[in-house]
Amino acid sequence: MAQWRQEQEAREARIAAGAPLADGKVVPAGRAGALLEAVLRPGDRVCLEGDNQKQADLLARALAGLDPDKVHDLHMVQSGVVLPEHLDIFETGIARRLDFAYSGPQSARIARMLYGGQIALGAVHTYLELFARYFIDLTPHVALIAAVSADREGNLYTGPNTEDTPTVVEATAFKNGVVVAQVNEVVDKVPRVDIPGDRVHFVVEAGRPFYVEPLFTRDPGAITETQILTAMLALKGIYAEYGVRRLNHGIGFNTAAIELLLPTYGERLGLKGKVATHWALNPHPTLIPAIESGWVEQVHCFGSEVGMDRYISARPDIFFTGADGSLRSNRAFCQTAGLYACDMFIGSTLQIDLEGHSSTVTQSRIAGFGGAPNMGSDARGRRHPSEPWLRAGREADPDGAAALRRGRKLVVQIGETFGDKNAPLFVEQLDALLLADKLKLDLAPVMVYADDVTHIVTEEGIANLLLCRDRDEREQAIRGVAGYTPLGRGRDARLVERLRERGVIRRPEDLGIDPLDADRGLLAARSIKDLAHWSGGLYQPPARFRNW
Amino acid sequence: MAQWRQEQEAREARIAAGAPLADGKVVPAGRAGALLEAVLRPGDRVCLEGDNQKQADLLARALAGLDPDKVHDLHMVQSGVVLPEHLDIFETGIARRLDFAYSGPQSARIARMLYGGQIALGAVHTYLELFARYFIDLTPHVALIAAVSADREGNLYTGPNTEDTPTVVEATAFKNGVVVAQVNEVVDKVPRVDIPGDRVHFVVEAGRPFYVEPLFTRDPGAITETQILTAMLALKGIYAEYGVRRLNHGIGFNTAAIELLLPTYGERLGLKGKVATHWALNPHPTLIPAIESGWVEQVHCFGSEVGMDRYISARPDIFFTGADGSLRSNRAFCQTAGLYACDMFIGSTLQIDLEGHSSTVTQSRIAGFGGAPNMGSDARGRRHPSEPWLRAGREADPDGAAALRRGRKLVVQIGETFGDKNAPLFVEQLDALLLADKLKLDLAPVMVYADDVTHIVTEEGIANLLLCRDRDEREQAIRGVAGYTPLGRGRDARLVERLRERGVIRRPEDLGIDPLDADRGLLAARSIKDLAHWSGGLYQPPARFRNW
Repeated sequence: MAQWRQEQEAREARIAAGAPLADGKVVPAGRAGALLEAVLRPGDRVCLEGDNQKQADLLARALAGLDPDKVHDLHMVQSGVVLPEHLDIFETGIARRLDFAYSGPQSARIARMLYGGQIALGAVHTYLELFARYFIDLTPHVALIAAVSADREGNLYTGPNTEDTPTVVEATAFKNGVVVAQVNEVVDKVPRVDIPGDRVHFVVEAGRPFYVEPLFTRDPGAITETQILTAMLALKGIYAEYGVRRLNHGIGFNTAAIELLLPTYGERLGLKGKVATHWALNPHPTLIPAIESGWVEQVHCFGSEVGMDRYISARPDIFFTGADGSLRSNRAFCQTAGLYACDMFIGSTLQIDLEGHSSTVTQSRIAGFGGAPNMGSDARGRRHPSEPWLRAGREADPDGAAALRRGRKLVVQIGETFGDKNAPLFVEQLDALLLADKLKLDLAPVMVYADDVTHIVTEEGIANLLLCRDRDEREQAIRGVAGYTPLGRGRDARLVERLRERGVIRRPEDLGIDPLDADRGLLAARSIKDLAHWSGGLYQPPARFRNW
Repeated sequence: MAQWRQEQEAREARIAAGAPLADGKVVPAGRAGALLEAVLRPGDRVCLEGDNQKQADLLARALAGLDPDKVHDLHMVQSGVVLPEHLDIFETGIARRLDFAYSGPQSARIARMLYGGQIALGAVHTYLELFARYFIDLTPHVALIAAVSADREGNLYTGPNTEDTPTVVEATAFKNGVVVAQVNEVVDKVPRVDIPGDRVHFVVEAGRPFYVEPLFTRDPGAITETQILTAMLALKGIYAEYGVRRLNHGIGFNTAAIELLLPTYGERLGLKGKVATHWALNPHPTLIPAIESGWVEQVHCFGSEVGMDRYISARPDIFFTGADGSLRSNRAFCQTAGLYACDMFIGSTLQIDLEGHSSTVTQSRIAGFGGAPNMGSDARGRRHPSEPWLRAGREADPDGAAALRRGRKLVVQIGETFGDKNAPLFVEQLDALLLADKLKLDLAPVMVYADDVTHIVTEEGIANLLLCRDRDEREQAIRGVAGYTPLGRGRDARLVERLRERGVIRRPEDLGIDPLDADRGLLAARSIKDLAHWSGGLYQPPARFRNW
């Protein structure tokens, strides 16, 4: 006779083991380690909340401090591997297996540990994919999450950084898992209920704020004129051409430049109200001038951004906010919105090969994907038309039967031909393939596959891959915007010229853009201080970005 | 100077207009119409909750009873057009524009009204796509939702049919919208908080349960031997071949037959624990024998199913349940799980053309899509490998560079060559194309596009479209399993035989299946009563399915 409540009883036992450490649900910070030892079992699947922004840092430290003889071989299933503790636990044997999505600041160390065999890698996911698996085959036994405050019943207020929390809690709490939240403080009444208390089993009072990384702040002062040129090309050659209203921008200075050109160059092109009105985007400070100039109708956010909270609260017509006045972000819904409701994803990458595959992995750094594979993929389940989407579909398949032709999402890679340390953007072979080979991965960590990319923008021009009719044209279109990189110099000049005549490649002059106009004077804000000024003092940049 | 709180102030005005009708947040059922008149404005985007299962029926009736001189030209953005009132409002002018996903029982009337120009159609979406747009460009001004109970602060308990509610509320409440919930009763304390009260503005006490459609109940007594044969083919030729553990089943008798064959035919094939262990699925009663036989590890649900509540509550190791003991379903997360965490979608359709496009639309019925386009599409953002997925990828592209080869989701269409009223499953042209032409739609309502379908299963055999190398092979592979339909008879017999030699087509005998073994005796349950018996009396079938 099968037992049908084993998991449920196991949870009750875990909670009972933790209960003596708690006053109701509340556990003092000093007992966090003891609590984790009480509720964790060897081999557990554990989500230690941490994405590219907010971190359950107190719980991370408590976990890293456990005795590996008691708690070991955990299977970590979490968005971000960001804090040192996230990797320390693999060195001590507390954790063994890892499924994750993003590892920005730990990318070099995670690579070394993978090579050294200290981590058994499940897979590198895109966020929404990992969330999906939380409900199917990677359901956490224990979730260690972060919130701003809790009441004594466990109701949680996340503040603007709601991010992954509702998703993680839903998967864990409703499938017999234990939810432990670190909170800055315990209060009588939370300003807003982001997570109902009946899903939360323990609340650890940290006594200080959880860590948040200001990942989406780009200092306009660091934007180069080359980046401004790529931004002008994108605006005139893609945003205006297709009439892209619903979109997502990746991280990076090229897209920050686009945001800052909307109220200046975009205005001059007459694009206000016609492009870039509806966004799936974190609250980028560089979007402030466009918002203040009336370009933006609505922004849904994955997470918040350090310093933006007061500004967001003062702009509830633009952002999603709660009854408490602050942002309500939600990574799962924003990723879904990016997948199915946006007509364009535009972002930067580290390497692009001659087919158009791109990756941010190098042999010594495994940065993970974050949202790019999801945002930057064509949603084949999409069934609603829009002008940009239909046009991209027509360009890709002009001879197909119109009745059975789908549209295409615009997936744009933008960058300078030479990136950091003069490394060429264009490469014969992605480092991701070497890495996959060395680690014997079933799947190379390609960020965006060639068949999803529609345009590549560099300072040399725009390559419209939708218009390429065969592999050879595609290769030459890419070489044709690869500038003086070795791959760019290896172009077939005649074929590239023919592609240009067909509009597959468009140079600045083909678009009526004089590269000499790509001046920093075009930026609506030229410094972080300018952004703060645009915001009427509501944007409060983190200290490291203040130089005045 | 721009105003940044116009939406927020508009919401406050709406709530102030409704407040005199309420005692706190609670409004008696008799004042529902007056409340809606108070909070609605002409032209509003409105989500009237209703998907393929639960319905905010009291609010639907109240809306339909409004004075079109006062409330008119609403833009309805909702999953399901299911109740007569959902269409009545378009006849009276209360509503004008429609964006939806599913319209099962109203499919004939909605077609007539579209032809008659009474409805301005936005698009027919798949659920997750419509949810995505709630956060970008179809954010509701007012959401009219349904729950089981509420307390006086507006905290809502949805019971097992949580379904779309959290998604609809999140999009509306956090973007200055008004949320009105009908509840069966107002209580002192809800058994579980599915929606926190600070997202709910008014609670209408209906005094009786909201309507739920038992859409996923299939009477085993109605399963034919032909359907059993297709189920045997699928199990041996696909489930076993690929080792599919994570999957979704569509609605229909063919997949119900598969569920009922797991503990019998599947057991004989030695597949227990090797296939069909992790599900994104509604709680199908026909899955009970497989669950009771220990086949199923975990099921995440879009919604619940009438009569299954006690059974689910008694099986918390299998289903996602809340602290109150009942199911917690969630359509958005389950659709996400189906997209990104499942290796197979298998379902039935009404028409398949010679390329493999399929549709459930006929010229006189527009049934909508529901989840099929999402579940039945290849998730190109997916970055985690699994055996079935990798194998499907290899089959599709055996000569491609392995390092850059992605896997493929298995998308299987299963059915008999002749369906209801002897209509052939295979057609020269989908009715969807004629419909698109007549209604001048930018996009034909194709449910699953050919390039996403990997297998077609009929009683004549399995066509593996992954192995087809050109259009011609694909057409003959489809004709080759199309039986005695006109398209099946039009096959090129020699080419079909060659495809069979290559394993592109597999007949029952190629798989060692004797069609004479396809006997109802193989079904683990042969009636609804059998299912109730399997469940130990926990499954309580709705009256219409009881004949004992």
